[in-house]
Amino acid sequence: MKRTVYNEDHEAFRKTIREFIAREVVPVFPEWEKQGCVPREFHHKFGALGISGFDIPEEYGGAGEVSYRYNAIITEEVFAAGVNFGNWNMSTGIILPYLLDLANEEQRRRWLPGIAAGDQLAIAMTEPGAGSDLAGITTSARREGEYYVLNGAKTFISNSSVATLMIVVCRTSAPSAEDRRTGLTLLVMDTSSEGFQVHRRLEKIGLKTSDTCEISFTEVKIPVENLLGEEGQAFGYLGRNLPRERLGLAVQTCAQAAAAIDFARDYVRHREIFGKSVASFQNTKFVLAECATEQAAAQALVDKAVELEDAGELTPADAAMAKVFCTEMAGRVIDKCLQLHGGYGYVLEYPIARLYADTRISRIVGGTSEVMKTIIAKSMGL
Amino acid sequence: MKRTVYNEDHEAFRKTIREFIAREVVPVFPEWEKQGCVPREFHHKFGALGISGFDIPEEYGGAGEVSYRYNAIITEEVFAAGVNFGNWNMSTGIILPYLLDLANEEQRRRWLPGIAAGDQLAIAMTEPGAGSDLAGITTSARREGEYYVLNGAKTFISNSSVATLMIVVCRTSAPSAEDRRTGLTLLVMDTSSEGFQVHRRLEKIGLKTSDTCEISFTEVKIPVENLLGEEGQAFGYLGRNLPRERLGLAVQTCAQAAAAIDFARDYVRHREIFGKSVASFQNTKFVLAECATEQAAAQALVDKAVELEDAGELTPADAAMAKVFCTEMAGRVIDKCLQLHGGYGYVLEYPIARLYADTRISRIVGGTSEVMKTIIAKSMGL
Amino acid sequence: MKRTVYNEDHEAFRKTIREFIAREVVPVFPEWEKQGCVPREFHHKFGALGISGFDIPEEYGGAGEVSYRYNAIITEEVFAAGVNFGNWNMSTGIILPYLLDLANEEQRRRWLPGIAAGDQLAIAMTEPGAGSDLAGITTSARREGEYYVLNGAKTFISNSSVATLMIVVCRTSAPSAEDRRTGLTLLVMDTSSEGFQVHRRLEKIGLKTSDTCEISFTEVKIPVENLLGEEGQAFGYLGRNLPRERLGLAVQTCAQAAAAIDFARDYVRHREIFGKSVASFQNTKFVLAECATEQAAAQALVDKAVELEDAGELTPADAAMAKVFCTEMAGRVIDKCLQLHGGYGYVLEYPIARLYADTRISRIVGGTSEVMKTIIAKSMGL
Amino acid sequence: MKRTVYNEDHEAFRKTIREFIAREVVPVFPEWEKQGCVPREFHHKFGALGISGFDIPEEYGGAGEVSYRYNAIITEEVFAAGVNFGNWNMSTGIILPYLLDLANEEQRRRWLPGIAAGDQLAIAMTEPGAGSDLAGITTSARREGEYYVLNGAKTFISNSSVATLMIVVCRTSAPSAEDRRTGLTLLVMDTSSEGFQVHRRLEKIGLKTSDTCEISFTEVKIPVENLLGEEGQAFGYLGRNLPRERLGLAVQTCAQAAAAIDFARDYVRHREIFGKSVASFQNTKFVLAECATEQAAAQALVDKAVELEDAGELTPADAAMAKVFCTEMAGRVIDKCLQLHGGYGYVLEYPIARLYADTRISRIVGGTSEVMKTIIAKSMGL
Repeated sequence: MKRTVYNEDHEAFRKTIREFIAREVVPVFPEWEKQGCVPREFHHKFGALGISGFDIPEEYGGAGEVSYRYNAIITEEVFAAGVNFGNWNMSTGIILPYLLDLANEEQRRRWLPGIAAGDQLAIAMTEPGAGSDLAGITTSARREGEYYVLNGAKTFISNSSVATLMIVVCRTSAPSAEDRRTGLTLLVMDTSSEGFQVHRRLEKIGLKTSDTCEISFTEVKIPVENLLGEEGQAFGYLGRNLPRERLGLAVQTCAQAAAAIDFARDYVRHREIFGKSVASFQNTKFVLAECATEQAAAQALVDKAVELEDAGELTPADAAMAKVFCTEMAGRVIDKCLQLHGGYGYVLEYPIARLYADTRISRIVGGTSEVMKTIIAKSMGL
Repeated sequence: MKRTVYNEDHEAFRKTIREFIAREVVPVFPEWEKQGCVPREFHHKFGALGISGFDIPEEYGGAGEVSYRYNAIITEEVFAAGVNFGNWNMSTGIILPYLLDLANEEQRRRWLPGIAAGDQLAIAMTEPGAGSDLAGITTSARREGEYYVLNGAKTFISNSSVATLMIVVCRTSAPSAEDRRTGLTLLVMDTSSEGFQVHRRLEKIGLKTSDTCEISFTEVKIPVENLLGEEGQAFGYLGRNLPRERLGLAVQTCAQAAAAIDFARDYVRHREIFGKSVASFQNTKFVLAECATEQAAAQALVDKAVELEDAGELTPADAAMAKVFCTEMAGRVIDKCLQLHGGYGYVLEYPIARLYADTRISRIVGGTSEVMKTIIAKSMGL
Repeated sequence: MKRTVYNEDHEAFRKTIREFIAREVVPVFPEWEKQGCVPREFHHKFGALGISGFDIPEEYGGAGEVSYRYNAIITEEVFAAGVNFGNWNMSTGIILPYLLDLANEEQRRRWLPGIAAGDQLAIAMTEPGAGSDLAGITTSARREGEYYVLNGAKTFISNSSVATLMIVVCRTSAPSAEDRRTGLTLLVMDTSSEGFQVHRRLEKIGLKTSDTCEISFTEVKIPVENLLGEEGQAFGYLGRNLPRERLGLAVQTCAQAAAAIDFARDYVRHREIFGKSVASFQNTKFVLAECATEQAAAQALVDKAVELEDAGELTPADAAMAKVFCTEMAGRVIDKCLQLHGGYGYVLEYPIARLYADTRISRIVGGTSEVMKTIIAKSMGL
Repeated sequence: MKRTVYNEDHEAFRKTIREFIAREVVPVFPEWEKQGCVPREFHHKFGALGISGFDIPEEYGGAGEVSYRYNAIITEEVFAAGVNFGNWNMSTGIILPYLLDLANEEQRRRWLPGIAAGDQLAIAMTEPGAGSDLAGITTSARREGEYYVLNGAKTFISNSSVATLMIVVCRTSAPSAEDRRTGLTLLVMDTSSEGFQVHRRLEKIGLKTSDTCEISFTEVKIPVENLLGEEGQAFGYLGRNLPRERLGLAVQTCAQAAAAIDFARDYVRHREIFGKSVASFQNTKFVLAECATEQAAAQALVDKAVELEDAGELTPADAAMAKVFCTEMAGRVIDKCLQLHGGYGYVLEYPIARLYADTRISRIVGGTSEVMKTIIAKSMGL
């Protein structure tokens, strides 16, 4: 079904990105997978292209582009190429908005140009005992003169080893009796700080180029001018960017499903079995038609959501719907497309296998499908 | 998710329709269901409102409105009210386009004003032995002077007993050896013709106000000026309106699902079980959130398809996608919403029960889901 | 897959039942559907065969047969024949066990021979306001001399108009503050009692031969010797037979699914489309193979459950698993088999259409799927 | 639901196996995963326990145990412990039967004692171009005096690097015009033979301890006394053991699902979120109840199939049903159990993550779900 969300400028941009990925990512991607991360230099190349930190205002070195469509296009091209470099959107799609929202003028001048040039960001939220329950966070920062002194441990931290700056969610005072969400603060830590340690890398089912680690802070000194927003207000800040993060996951999984359908279509056309092409079986046709139909519905939903986002009209429940629908759809579609590959679908050198392994986390990160349903139900007055 | 397919004019029109249905249909609908059809007078009331035969040009008494959006709005309002009068869209949504496409000027003047005023149309296609296989049709018409003389039998004919005019698909010559699709012709028969008989009404799972009958033609004389299009060309004509028919079914089932969600939401909020409202159970919340999400995706797909239809850009594969996605979605959603009603969901006085019984045919009429998948697969080069 | 739950005696019994149904039910079933109930005379014919009230001890006119297998066989044969007469198992499968469990010797002598001869039973539990929440029951019985005087209203009462005896769940004292389940009593009412009225018959999606009505009691006098079990203890009694009722629904829906598969298999073999039999399409083969596989798994589960029931080892959670699995499976399988029939599947003269309409209630009666899951989860320590 | 397929002897055997796995496998399993295979010494320990090559007759060093139940028990215990060592059943469950069926007395004496002691077998069937289409095999063996000389390449060969003996499917003559299945032969190759090479190990989504490789044969000399069965008859041999292989996959995936449910149940009971245990949410309860129910149905089907196998009554269609039902069920159940783990479910140190990655191949190996459906449909006369 013809898409109408992009104009000619967007398509020109898409072409640039597509060529860049074909040239700079596809050939080296298997290498990155073995290394388990994306080299910092690549991120700077990406920055040099002017598309890292897209919506950073021009005065800080960014493109100053506020339309989400550009971000969506990069995502689509990344997945159409069957690569997923280091959870590409983590730094600028998910974490950067915190800086854009909360950093003061001095901080913006200090941090944004680096990001625009390709420096990576990380955010340290989850703790071993607390999971998604922010109020249970125990990593603490005590004020000592011109510094906060940070102690604690975090887990599941993406970009731990490649990030230059890390936003740390920590406790600067005990939660009040009435509201356990009080007392949390955001501090921006330079990852070269003494006392910061990256420990064990967690081996995951997929996302092999994304480093997800356990980390710890031992008497890490963070200058007070690295306080992001106001002390004690982190809880309120943290939910703010979730709708956009979820929209990003919707765009991404929609693109993954589209890529999976393309891979499967190519495969079944060329693969023969019992002297006939796999494509000639009615089951193959029906399965791919079902996949294409589901993907088209998801795409219509996502394109609509992107338009609403650009118009400032996307509600949290809308974003939750887009996220849960697209991630669940991608799970089903990629699984079916893998099946059409037979045994080859299980071998990681085939992109369909990587897609399968990568996409499973999408129904969990950014809020699980169950959390999405809770948000949607609430918006329905239930 | 905010819809953007309709403007203020459309919404004003919606209001008129909504009030008309609340006043003229809802109170008498249970009566119509007992009678098994919608009285002809009602159709004329509908015609008097100026919305029967919407896209009939003004010179023939119609509204001359070409946008499909108006049609979509009526459909949405019919189902939001939980009534489905006599397969409302059959005459003007599905059959009228044949007249609009094929009738010559004299025929237009003769037939269209009646339709605009509320006369009903039927189309006699399916035969007991032939099913969806048009080439197998055996009902025949032989030329005798200024008449065609029609003989044969048909089944599954909607509107048999309320239609004023019936388009009959019949054979005017044997199929040629090379192409069995030749030799079929469309004749427009006045249903008061001698030799035309409506036999047994088929009892269906739902759609109780829609008469679906077995009919027969015995030496029925049809004036040659009632030939629609050219003799022998019917096969080519019959597929033409299918995309719009399918889009109509997509709009309709999307509206049915939306109505089902509303009915269920109201029910669970007011119904108590074990001293708690049904709405307060997490399962209820999750099920309704899933339903709302699926419906939202379908709605985005349909709204997109309506826009493309109005722009003349909806492909047959697009229509097939919209049809299969929405009808399958409605099947799932209505089933879940019925379940939330418990035992009441099985009792026909609850609109959810009627929706359940009515919607099952949607995955079959207008081309089954399997036929849709075949069309989609072909468009994918499979 | 070869079944091993039945021996030769069982199969001989099956043959008798099969012939009886073919002779006495199949030809008149469409008539019964029009009338909306099964004539009392038929039930007496059934009784004369010695299989009504199977497990009634021989001294009271029954067969004294304790194995549940015989009951299962009748169920299987009823559904294999595509008829479902008046919810056949309601009286003797679901309600009779209350009498067998609770009636004293005098009552057994008074009531059981009639049941064995074919008299029908009903149970009046559900009330308009209370639904499945027994503690909310308000129908009351006050003691006056040698009578209880009954007042109140019930809904969803199967067999209302054909039953000879009706077990009424009523309140003989207010619930205590600590335990709202106290104060409920079972009284056996003769349906010819003055003050008992059968009101509106509820029109249902299916089960057309099963009368489901709203009823009321106005100063109905019931002799105290018709008290079943002890006063105030009804709550404890009512759950007792649920596992067997659920097992019955599992057996039944398993048989429905098997019948649906047979109907569809026959249909697709004989039906041609585009010059090929429907059976020759890969999609048809795959869909029926999926259906047969699901049904085989359900059958293995049910046969196992029947063996455990006969051995006295079937737990409530086992029965809940069998019920939820088989009813959900039947829902899916019958839906797919209907689809293979195309438009004919929607016409009630085809048994697949009746199966579709009938089976929907199975996921609700005897405890909804949601209640089953609650029971299963509890048994898992959740 | 109580299982009845095992007696006390079986349960005693189960206890031995369970202890052995807890002691000898669980502690070292992470090490094996890093190495990418199971050390040969372990297989000999397993052999010393007397359970490697179970059904090898006692005179050749085996247990002479013909009941499949023992094999099923080991499988269940392997997966209950959350380990899946090197596709444990490949050698003795899938390949050994070829030797037991086809080896002559001299070969039995030569080969079986080693297998009983723990030597591993491999079978080289799939070729890069031919996939599951045996008739397309091009690896060839020409006769030269007392040797066959083997040339060709294979892919997807499990146990390539740990096997002592490898059964090679090769072509000893061109296929005849009438029957392209002729001309295939089985040769047993010692893996220390000159000219045999193990090339690239295929990286898979899961099954990290199972080595799956590309291999080649360059002028490999195989003594004629290593011909297995008759020359040119391989095609007929190769299908023979498929039902048992499929039953094995059914047993295995049933056990995987049971293990997944146990892991998830433990997890949700101990994990807290928003101050409540995950187990206390209704969604958690319902999801686990659904999983347990599906697994119970699969278990009933598998236990039935094991009984029929031991009685020699399991048909190929029965085995296909068990395989497709259990592998599809396991796919769904493990996916849901992973979801209940949240982010931890994606981390490979959690056994649920390994189960997820491992189980995906089950719907493909031993014949895909699509092949199973084809077999089942054929048995239904479709």
